[in-house]
Parts: sequence; structure tokens; C-alpha cells
Amino acid sequence: MSLARVHNFAISLDGFGTGFGQSKELHFGHAGDRLHQWMFGTQSWQRTSGSRGVDNVFVRDTDVKIGAEIMGAGKWGHPGWEDDPDWKGAWGPNPPFHTPVFVLTRHQREPIEMEGGTTFHFLDTTPAEALETARKAADGKDVRIGGGATVIRAFLAAGLIDHMHLVVVPILLGRGVRLWGEDIEGIEKDYVIESTPSPSGVTHVTFTRKA
Amino acid sequence: MSLARVHNFAISLDGFGTGFGQSKELHFGHAGDRLHQWMFGTQSWQRTSGSRGVDNVFVRDTDVKIGAEIMGAGKWGHPGWEDDPDWKGAWGPNPPFHTPVFVLTRHQREPIEMEGGTTFHFLDTTPAEALETARKAADGKDVRIGGGATVIRAFLAAGLIDHMHLVVVPILLGRGVRLWGEDIEGIEKDYVIESTPSPSGVTHVTFTRKA
Repeated sequence: MSLARVHNFAISLDGFGTGFGQSKELHFGHAGDRLHQWMFGTQSWQRTSGSRGVDNVFVRDTDVKIGAEIMGAGKWGHPGWEDDPDWKGAWGPNPPFHTPVFVLTRHQREPIEMEGGTTFHFLDTTPAEALETARKAADGKDVRIGGGATVIRAFLAAGLIDHMHLVVVPILLGRGVRLWGEDIEGIEKDYVIESTPSPSGVTHVTFTRKA
Repeated sequence: MSLARVHNFAISLDGFGTGFGQSKELHFGHAGDRLHQWMFGTQSWQRTSGSRGVDNVFVRDTDVKIGAEIMGAGKWGHPGWEDDPDWKGAWGPNPPFHTPVFVLTRHQREPIEMEGGTTFHFLDTTPAEALETARKAADGKDVRIGGGATVIRAFLAAGLIDHMHLVVVPILLGRGVRLWGEDIEGIEKDYVIESTPSPSGVTHVTFTRKA
């Protein structure tokens, strides 16, 4: 059974996964790094120090049994990346995925092979078809749905997400790209939802698909 | 010091304090009673049985040291109440307030004195002026800002709320009246925010104004 999983997707208390005004310099717009400060305090992030508490175990679960990722064009590149033929994603020569990564976009490119096992593929297709493609590439492992908010909502609306880990950060961004939307009204009926606060101030919210 | 306090204000995970399609029969629209099921399980609600845990102590705090309430016209009556001269609110002859209650509305009426100490007054004014009026009536006690979502957001935007207790219910309503809005971006800087999950499945979120 190959699951579709969302991990560490941070949203503000008012539901924004990205702030307003995304650019090459501000990947999360006016949110800056405020949605991810909780992660910077973990041992997984800092390596030699950092907390080994609840934030850390959630971060460490991110890569376990993952064989491929699907992400949106807005995560892969800033607005306008399609006009830059040299753009190879925001993560340098050795991206932290180490698996095939499928970028959902209308702007097609040849696959880009990076160091460390990451290859970017570009798909212009539905969530269901993208997941089928990614599952084949994952070779029996799970597929991570990497975001952003628009992509996760589309997969939720299509009923394709098996596990979702959100991190609710107690800030009010007011503007940006919201995870929530009318098209996912009522999906809680398909999930067990747990809420776990962390001493860091964030709250981990998990959606586990009912058996 | 007379505080302005919000209590037991339940919102869906996607931030709606009221569902879509409010009417005389459906006070919370398509949300029905799903935003308040957590409350029905408490001893405060059931009287002779029910849980005495965290949900209950939050409910019991609602009336402590409150001397007046301010509410919006959408809480006081269903859409169209202004055309019903006999409408006296949704709570029967002895409403559960037992204090002066100030209804913010463009539709003016003479004050209505009910049983049990509740008197409804009707104000067409700003949040700041309404709070000043309610504080005088509260006679040294605090003022509860009773909702709905639009009224609470207006008081937050005006910087008038000292304490806010939200109850995040793990459902996705998709549509309705949202508590959050662009006009309260960044207000977290003025508050200490705590998140406390309850065994009932809801999460209590408190905003306490920084000293």
C-alpha cells in the first residue's frame, strides 16, 4: 500500500500556507520565515544541537518510506521561473529530496537530474494521474505531496490524501495563499484528526484517513 | 480595570464562526450545532452530569466578573428580525445574560427589559464607543464581546480585546462568516497565545494581552 502523505505543512492561525507577494527573494512572501521558525529549533535542522521533542519527531518522519514527491510550480520556483531556462529549483545542486520529484506545471521541461538522487520531472496533468505516475516511480514506497497550499487542497478535494501533518503557527498573516477552501468542505468525515501542541508554541494537527 | 473578553467562541478549522445560510431555524446556518457539540458534553451545560474537564472550566469562566455584553445584530436575531416588532432575541423570556446587553445594529429600538436581569439596548456606534457605554453599565466588572465573528473581528481590529478564548473544532465548513480577515493581520504581537487540546477533540486557543 503506497500512501499519499503531507508533512510539515505550516499554516498561520488564519490558514495561509504562504504569505502575500512571493518572489525570488521572498519564497513565502511577507510571511518570511515566520511559518518555519519552529523547525529551525529542532535537532533535525540544526544537526549538532536543537530540541529532540515533538517538533523534531514530526520533522524526522518526513522522509521515512518516501519514494517520490509531487510539488506545485509555486514551490519549485518563484513567479517567473518559466522564463529562466537555467532555473533548477530553489535548493542548490543537491536538493534534499533524493527521489524523483514531479512538478505540476503547464510549463513543460525536460527532466533535470540533480546530485544526490533527485530528478525533477514536469507534468501537466490531474492530481490523480500525477499520483499514479509518482507511485510507479516510488517503487512501493509512499508519495509525499509537498505543497504548496493550492496543490495540497487539490489533492484533498480529489480524495487522494491518506495522511496530512499540518503545523498551525500562532500568527495572523491576513493575506496570501490559503490552504482551506470551499472545495474541501466536510472532508473531516474521512479522517481521524488529532491536535498536539508543542512547547515551541505551534500545534501539530494530523489527519489520518479512516480505515 | 474593566477588561473586554471573548469566551467560548467556536470556529471551524478553516476559521468560520457561523456557517452559510443563517435563518430563524438555522442560527448557525449549515454548521447546525456542530460548532457547539463540545459544549453539550460539559457539566455546565448538562447540570446533573457531564464532564468536569478542560471544556467545562472554560465554559464556567464565561460569566465570571462579567457586567455587560456587546453582541452583533446577527447574534441577536436571524436575518429579517428588524421587520418583526415582537422579536426579543433568541433566548426566550429569561435570557442567560442577566446583565445589560448592547446590540450593535443600524436598526434602532427602545430598550427591552427581560426577566432575570437582562436588558437589551440597541446601539448604532463604533466598537470603541460601544465599549465605553458597556463599561459604564458594567459597573466595574468586565465586558463580554459576545460575537458573532464580524463583531469580534471589528473589536480585534480596533485593538480593544484584552482576552479571547477560541474553540477550534476539527471540521471544515468551507463557507460562512469567517473570524479571520486582512484587517487583523499581525495582531499576535500584542498577545500571548496558548493552545490546549481537549479530549473531546477541540482545541482551546487563548489570546491574553501582553502586559
